[in-house]
Amino acid sequence: MRRKSCLPASDPAKGGLPLSELYFDNAATMPSSPTAINAALEILQGGYGNPSAAHGAGLRAEARLREARKQVCALAGCREDELFFTSGGTESNNLCLLGAVEAMRHKGKRLIASDSEHPSVLEPLKRLANKGFELVLLPTRGGVLDLKALEEALNEDTVLVSIQAVNSETGAAYDLSAVAEILRRRQSQALFHTDAVQALGKIPLQLSRLGVHLASFSAHKLGGLPGIGAVYVQKGCRISPPYLGGGQENGLRSGTENLPAIAAFGAAAEEARLQWAYRLENAQRVRQVFLDRLSGFEQVHFHLPPHASVYILNLSLQVLPSEVMLNALSAKGAFVSAGSACSSRKKSAGSVLRAFGAPASQLDHALRFSFGYQTTPQMAHELCDLLVELFLSR
Amino acid sequence: MRRKSCLPASDPAKGGLPLSELYFDNAATMPSSPTAINAALEILQGGYGNPSAAHGAGLRAEARLREARKQVCALAGCREDELFFTSGGTESNNLCLLGAVEAMRHKGKRLIASDSEHPSVLEPLKRLANKGFELVLLPTRGGVLDLKALEEALNEDTVLVSIQAVNSETGAAYDLSAVAEILRRRQSQALFHTDAVQALGKIPLQLSRLGVHLASFSAHKLGGLPGIGAVYVQKGCRISPPYLGGGQENGLRSGTENLPAIAAFGAAAEEARLQWAYRLENAQRVRQVFLDRLSGFEQVHFHLPPHASVYILNLSLQVLPSEVMLNALSAKGAFVSAGSACSSRKKSAGSVLRAFGAPASQLDHALRFSFGYQTTPQMAHELCDLLVELFLSR
Repeated sequence: MRRKSCLPASDPAKGGLPLSELYFDNAATMPSSPTAINAALEILQGGYGNPSAAHGAGLRAEARLREARKQVCALAGCREDELFFTSGGTESNNLCLLGAVEAMRHKGKRLIASDSEHPSVLEPLKRLANKGFELVLLPTRGGVLDLKALEEALNEDTVLVSIQAVNSETGAAYDLSAVAEILRRRQSQALFHTDAVQALGKIPLQLSRLGVHLASFSAHKLGGLPGIGAVYVQKGCRISPPYLGGGQENGLRSGTENLPAIAAFGAAAEEARLQWAYRLENAQRVRQVFLDRLSGFEQVHFHLPPHASVYILNLSLQVLPSEVMLNALSAKGAFVSAGSACSSRKKSAGSVLRAFGAPASQLDHALRFSFGYQTTPQMAHELCDLLVELFLSR
Repeated sequence: MRRKSCLPASDPAKGGLPLSELYFDNAATMPSSPTAINAALEILQGGYGNPSAAHGAGLRAEARLREARKQVCALAGCREDELFFTSGGTESNNLCLLGAVEAMRHKGKRLIASDSEHPSVLEPLKRLANKGFELVLLPTRGGVLDLKALEEALNEDTVLVSIQAVNSETGAAYDLSAVAEILRRRQSQALFHTDAVQALGKIPLQLSRLGVHLASFSAHKLGGLPGIGAVYVQKGCRISPPYLGGGQENGLRSGTENLPAIAAFGAAAEEARLQWAYRLENAQRVRQVFLDRLSGFEQVHFHLPPHASVYILNLSLQVLPSEVMLNALSAKGAFVSAGSACSSRKKSAGSVLRAFGAPASQLDHALRFSFGYQTTPQMAHELCDLLVELFLSR
């Protein structure tokens, strides 16, 4: 068993890999890939101006912006005039949801979402509910969206349906095409939004064919930099941006374009697209190590949705509370999480697993392993060794 | 006269300086300082996690976040529990204005601002005006805020006063202390916000003593990275954040913290604080070159406020339209702007200069020169040579 140091590395040649070689929290944040870092550095050191400036440095910046947008669109499967850069997943979700509801404000009061959404979807919707909207949450028991419940909830008053593409805790991939098909068949006026933060680069997305009107992305979940994301707004669909200013991103998202991070997003998206098959197979192998090595223990309960991103694996380890296990693993340089790390560390977890249908006794014992381009099956074996040594060998 | 290449540099040893040695558009975006870039790189390559994660990589990230916050607070003159990171100036302004109005929504309908605010202040206020609020704009003729007009406009119904600290086009520094004093004397309930994007690192700010409740900052205007900013919220003052999610930044600004850019913001702020006297004197010398060399020409009209940031200089050059001069200068590798470059390139400029009181005939001939830590008096001489050669030698 290797023992990891907790001091930050200072060697730039290391690239974006975290020091710990047992980093299994890529769904919280994935180390920026060296390619992405270099793309950002090239902008930072290359004499680019404000993309809204009229001089040469500004025009150069604008051209670079176009190139990056193209790269992200190629991965997301949408047109370049349908993708707008934001500061990340949380802003993207709020922008889409509040922007859609504002644009539809005279058309109805019902909002529909799954009961497993990320806080950056659930919290804005709950506040809207407090302001007179009617929020219906659809069950996701077993990691499957209840489409019958959607049929029942969907009425003429419905203005928004928001269903995540991949759940950040269990990896469950919901059937967005089926949702779109129901909305179409019922001739619903509702705008269909998906939080695709854990999906981009992980499961195939062909936005233009999927039938969603709005989608949210975050770059640092696929090896880009933090602080950058994007929204997809289907051509012809209009939302009303909550924040206003200089009118950048076709008026949808004002503020000086974050060119270094946008260039890195483009590079990371291109990398994810070109390495798709390799990364997928690698993640499957990593995942299989955990399934093979831990299935035999009666204290281990996997939470396995029928359709899932292979980059996320959730289990309950019926030995100690999650937090105690997290700390013990962290002390050995192995970084995993108990659930969504995007929300405050202090908040009690478990609501997604409860929705999944996990017994109450398992909620406080959950561990989430999430994989990235840099995760190897060997690392998975080492983490399993640690889990056995610390928790499963009595 | 040097002729500049317009190709981006590829040599990382160059640091963040733009290729053109005649970059005079630092109010639009200032090249990231090498120190700031290195601070970001250290995070990107050093194995930091999501600051909200409970493991070692997360805790390390959280500690680094605290250090950067301290560095920015030292420059802004406020407490660490009063500063919250955002994605930039536009988000900061929208967050403060919409958040304040929402928090005060049962207390009144009048909003007061100067007539020279940045679009990221003016546009949100105009939309509120369309929704039933009453917006009063105070004159800033000659670059001086009309305090009598403030006295007249301020009534019991006033919930918000927003006055920028430094105007981005003329450099005019408005008297925020006098505004605060009037609000105090009149025992106004109004929240006082200042867009301090062009002020931080340029004019002395002691937020805790200034009497403002809310302030907005942007890192890339002082040598940090784009895509990061901050808001100051005075201890005890409550605003209601428009966007919700994981509850980061004490619930005020949800979303994974952009640690690389935050670390770079801290480094740039510390650099600005430590080099304060040197940078100020340097900018004064740069500014003086333009005043000395161009004052003699009858085609040149300086727009000089009585109190101003020395980092911005605005003049009208009564020879050709701004855009033609901009392009001619750009072709020679000299990058200046006609006004605020933060807003869309396409929008007609001139509203700030009109508010300043410049004659209509001068509005289409404005040039703004804005200076940064890397601007030298020698560069100012070279730009003056160019201006004379291109436009002033008939």
